[in-house]
Amino acid sequence: MSHINSVQKWLADNNYDIAYVSDFMDIQYFTGFSSDPIERVLALFIFPDKDPFIFAPALEVEAVKETGWKYPVFGYLDHEDPFALIHDHIVELAGTPQKWAIEKTNLTVEKYASLQKQFPAAEFTGNLTPFVEQLKLIKTPEEIKTLEIAGDWADKAFEIGFNALSKGRTEQEVVAEIEYQLKLAGIMQMSFETMVQTGANAAEAHGGPRKELIEPNKLCLFDLGVIYNGYISDATRTVAFGEVSQHAKDVYNVCLEANLTAQAAAKPGITAAELDKIARDIIDKAGYGEYFTHRLGHGMGQSEHEFPSIMAGNDLVLQPGMCFSIEPGIYIPGDVGVRIEDCVHITEDGCLPFTHTSKELTVIPVK
Amino acid sequence: MSHINSVQKWLADNNYDIAYVSDFMDIQYFTGFSSDPIERVLALFIFPDKDPFIFAPALEVEAVKETGWKYPVFGYLDHEDPFALIHDHIVELAGTPQKWAIEKTNLTVEKYASLQKQFPAAEFTGNLTPFVEQLKLIKTPEEIKTLEIAGDWADKAFEIGFNALSKGRTEQEVVAEIEYQLKLAGIMQMSFETMVQTGANAAEAHGGPRKELIEPNKLCLFDLGVIYNGYISDATRTVAFGEVSQHAKDVYNVCLEANLTAQAAAKPGITAAELDKIARDIIDKAGYGEYFTHRLGHGMGQSEHEFPSIMAGNDLVLQPGMCFSIEPGIYIPGDVGVRIEDCVHITEDGCLPFTHTSKELTVIPVK
Repeated sequence: MSHINSVQKWLADNNYDIAYVSDFMDIQYFTGFSSDPIERVLALFIFPDKDPFIFAPALEVEAVKETGWKYPVFGYLDHEDPFALIHDHIVELAGTPQKWAIEKTNLTVEKYASLQKQFPAAEFTGNLTPFVEQLKLIKTPEEIKTLEIAGDWADKAFEIGFNALSKGRTEQEVVAEIEYQLKLAGIMQMSFETMVQTGANAAEAHGGPRKELIEPNKLCLFDLGVIYNGYISDATRTVAFGEVSQHAKDVYNVCLEANLTAQAAAKPGITAAELDKIARDIIDKAGYGEYFTHRLGHGMGQSEHEFPSIMAGNDLVLQPGMCFSIEPGIYIPGDVGVRIEDCVHITEDGCLPFTHTSKELTVIPVK
Repeated sequence: MSHINSVQKWLADNNYDIAYVSDFMDIQYFTGFSSDPIERVLALFIFPDKDPFIFAPALEVEAVKETGWKYPVFGYLDHEDPFALIHDHIVELAGTPQKWAIEKTNLTVEKYASLQKQFPAAEFTGNLTPFVEQLKLIKTPEEIKTLEIAGDWADKAFEIGFNALSKGRTEQEVVAEIEYQLKLAGIMQMSFETMVQTGANAAEAHGGPRKELIEPNKLCLFDLGVIYNGYISDATRTVAFGEVSQHAKDVYNVCLEANLTAQAAAKPGITAAELDKIARDIIDKAGYGEYFTHRLGHGMGQSEHEFPSIMAGNDLVLQPGMCFSIEPGIYIPGDVGVRIEDCVHITEDGCLPFTHTSKELTVIPVK
């Protein structure tokens, strides 16, 4: 509830009468209820000085109650007009609000038009999105604990994947082994498509796991993560499958230095742009700058699409509780691809990673 | 390209100057290029009498070209303003369009505002969404061929799942086996979370696969599907794991009769509502009407969220090429849950299912 209280205070401070939370990830963040309504309407309404309520497809109402939600929840059936019902519930509970805050990066033009039709005299100038992004930027100790557990499962996934590497298997089969063992352990969802990419395939922007047998004596990149209680992990390791060339080792070591140096520098007070530059300078100086084709990192929590973005131009000062990836990469087309990634959270005087699999170049014997 | 031509004709017929396709599934439908841009901007612009173009994150530009896209594709970098670039590309290629068609059920309020800012004198009254939904409603022979292959993989998945049923396994472990064997065969994505639910768990609206050992002598429900070349399968079978009660068999047979009768009735000329009623009447007459808590079916193709919706109130007349699920279900809380589902496509004189696993009550010996 403390997150809802923050929105209530923000509404009061900005003289808004109501907030319409439409992003289902944000509804999960505020209420604990997790469901993607796809084309249906799922909404949370927050008022500065009244109890919030949830509006959901009728089939979901029981599930909302089971999460322990203490405030009203109203359902609608497929043949009913959801926005007409929303209008009536709002008016009954809170009168007719004039000044609205909506989630402009989530609400569709069509739903917005349906809402305007119900409240023709209202103003929809408030944008709740940036405020929620700010709230989510600083993770609570409970969230960090959950992220740590998700990270432990990513470490377990690396172990499974490294053990599964074999010249008798394909990249797709190694993915299959990783996800199989995790599911047997009760981890039913990965946070994104698991990547296993060997040799030059790891340098392909769109190179997914292939059906060909894995080539020995190449680097092999694993990028993976799980969803645990609504929070994700995301980590990358690149290992040597057999004896790799000195060139591959050199590229690896540059990437490792960039990773370790950035992780050591990540602490309160440094900006996102400065942190990106620390890693980039190392790769630039080694002559591989043109092959580091993305930002150093992305924020993470419920998904890998949060803030802060660790990139040039972002002068945001890092603070305790911020969670993001540090993932320098060097992708030389047709040759070799290396990425080394941990997600970390900023502490009082540094940062701590959520994953702990060794980053020294691990050699997996060819079998 | 024929789908793009249809949009061009629609634009000309309705005097629109440009269509902005923002839904990534629709971009896949029109161009063959498949990518979810999440927070970035991916767009397809179609003009009544000029070549279309794609606007994409810079990292995706090569991948667009690799699909064989013959028209322009423009990229943007993270620090650039995508809508300013979009403005310049449009003006260069087609002058300043006045009348726009946008995808109102997809475009967000924020992106819409960014677009309006670039084209302050334009009108955005056109809604492309219903037209694309209409186009997608009738599948081409090529699409149906792909859906058939996706269906074959769902049949394969049932076979794996039935073989994996064991009192020594949990529902989650059976899910793990299904997805493992499919991945080993190169099918890397399911179309939704695979469901394996035994006994009363199959009657729970939110009952996912559990961690407890599977109870023998109960019905067990499998709901699953795969993604194959961008098209899905979706099918449900309920089998007897050992000797089930006469009551469970009775419920099963009512559901089966509803399924078979509706499938036999699905042909050109009948409406979606009539088809729903045929199945519903059978379940009602048997006394289980209150336990059939959802519509008879949903449209499908690239996802399970397409049209036509097979439900009361939908007077749409079925036509050849329409693809949808027929999935009557009976869910008696705390007792038993049955659903039997095939997706079908309407032919000239009836319908054909995409999945062929037997629907007679299959008994899996307890092992």
